Amino acid sequence: MSGLHVHLVEVRFGDCDPAGIIYFPRFFALFHDAMETWFPARLGLRYAELVVDRKLGFPAVHTEADFKAPCALGDAIAVELRVARLGRSTIDLRYVVRGAAGEPRVRGATTCVVMDLDPASPGYRRALAIPDDLRQRIERFMAADDEAVPEDSQDSP
Amino acid sequence: MSGLHVHLVEVRFGDCDPAGIIYFPRFFALFHDAMETWFPARLGLRYAELVVDRKLGFPAVHTEADFKAPCALGDAIAVELRVARLGRSTIDLRYVVRGAAGEPRVRGATTCVVMDLDPASPGYRRALAIPDDLRQRIERFMAADDEAVPEDSQDSP
Amino acid sequence: MSGLHVHLVEVRFGDCDPAGIIYFPRFFALFHDAMETWFPARLGLRYAELVVDRKLGFPAVHTEADFKAPCALGDAIAVELRVARLGRSTIDLRYVVRGAAGEPRVRGATTCVVMDLDPASPGYRRALAIPDDLRQRIERFMAADDEAVPEDSQDSP
Amino acid sequence: MSGLHVHLVEVRFGDCDPAGIIYFPRFFALFHDAMETWFPARLGLRYAELVVDRKLGFPAVHTEADFKAPCALGDAIAVELRVARLGRSTIDLRYVVRGAAGEPRVRGATTCVVMDLDPASPGYRRALAIPDDLRQRIERFMAADDEAVPEDSQDSP
Repeated sequence: MSGLHVHLVEVRFGDCDPAGIIYFPRFFALFHDAMETWFPARLGLRYAELVVDRKLGFPAVHTEADFKAPCALGDAIAVELRVARLGRSTIDLRYVVRGAAGEPRVRGATTCVVMDLDPASPGYRRALAIPDDLRQRIERFMAADDEAVPEDSQDSP
Repeated sequence: MSGLHVHLVEVRFGDCDPAGIIYFPRFFALFHDAMETWFPARLGLRYAELVVDRKLGFPAVHTEADFKAPCALGDAIAVELRVARLGRSTIDLRYVVRGAAGEPRVRGATTCVVMDLDPASPGYRRALAIPDDLRQRIERFMAADDEAVPEDSQDSP
Repeated sequence: MSGLHVHLVEVRFGDCDPAGIIYFPRFFALFHDAMETWFPARLGLRYAELVVDRKLGFPAVHTEADFKAPCALGDAIAVELRVARLGRSTIDLRYVVRGAAGEPRVRGATTCVVMDLDPASPGYRRALAIPDDLRQRIERFMAADDEAVPEDSQDSP
Repeated sequence: MSGLHVHLVEVRFGDCDPAGIIYFPRFFALFHDAMETWFPARLGLRYAELVVDRKLGFPAVHTEADFKAPCALGDAIAVELRVARLGRSTIDLRYVVRGAAGEPRVRGATTCVVMDLDPASPGYRRALAIPDDLRQRIERFMAADDEAVPEDSQDSP
């Protein structure tokens, strides 16, 4: 049981490299886009409001991806986001990019840290305890019953 | 009277520059994205099918944009596409990027040429007369009555 | 007679689209990169210092490009920058992208406006008269005798 | 003892996000750029020749990065490339991004696989044993004595 956010993407010409498939650094931008749509869709918060008004940042301290199958121009893909772990100031996100038949193509993970980006604050550019309202909303998402079948078994043939 | 295709976009973190607004070269990618969604939405053709299967290309020979107001992180914007003129092998596209209240923020224009990208063809990398099925569909789009109010007068205060 | 700044670039995999050539929106980023190297190379000013420390911005209000020949993966190209006109708060830049044999491949133009990006300033996000030190340096560049042969005649066969 | 290739980069406006630092997906493009300059600089082979003429691809099957310190607009940074391991058809690359004082800011790793990208070949889009000439050149690079001091100890204060 876990919360699952799905961000749908169609692969554009500008996403693709000379091999006609998504240039792999682009996947990390797609992961970030999925996080940005997760905020309003599942946390009830606008990402821009957190960044611009509340001056919070969510920089990655670690990220990785395994590329199993390419995504070509025009492919309709789904970027799935789950929360693996919530630390004091870190959020561990897991991503799976699936093709139209549900097959996993890319698996990714990002650890991001909640950061104080208010130049007027004494903690400017330092990690921050995740604000209570944000933590509660993420915990509620984590407890959501979006998947009857656990994610791992979906990948089995 | 003219056909109007609207491509909706939300401004992402990765679109923005240190000023917190869309880095201006990105608008040309958004124009291209709007063209890619125009194909299936209004011409009944998949862009990827034309490019990958029929080996047609649509490179720009000229493009330009006027930037009137910035687009910031989180803004919901609409990229409008119209066809200004259809030549033998060229398509003149006009773009208007509008903010949530309909106000124009960017106006753009691209002339693209239909090109033969089949390495096995004698006309490889040369301009091609727009194929008949594509021309007919574009002409039908151009004749569509999508706008009661002409585009210019919409901008008036 | 005019000042000429040359920014050398090698075309990378990530610059290219499925046709194996520079994805055209990238040229506007290359133009901007050329402007960024022009500041220290010819004006004796660091671009980052102007933007970060002096809180000046140089947003484009108009930009355009004509694409005459493609630039392919691995091509060594030169992005030439000239100043066409200096207004009260605007700078008109002209760009020519040349291939290894000097042949012009892309011609571009950008009008950028010098903007006050200091949130603490009453003129925040408004155009600014070009600061005197910057104007003098640009005028000196414009008067430099970098070209014996005028730019137009260079393109002749 | 190991071969070390250094790719120098200056952080441009277009590399940066609203926090004024490199948008983290960009680092994976910088890693790729470092690989592209490694080919001619240290292997005596042009990357474009391998990709375009010999129809070899080098897609990533795994990549990751740890972000220790941000890189801001205008920073002069060095992307170091080492080869950690050479498999039958895989190349394990390690990257360190250093600031002007030599301090490590980002560490990355990519496993790429040499792939047959010749549509006319029976092995199209399959992994390929690394061609002999390429393997010999990479092994020679790996055996080069570019560093007196091992990489790990350089990071010590």
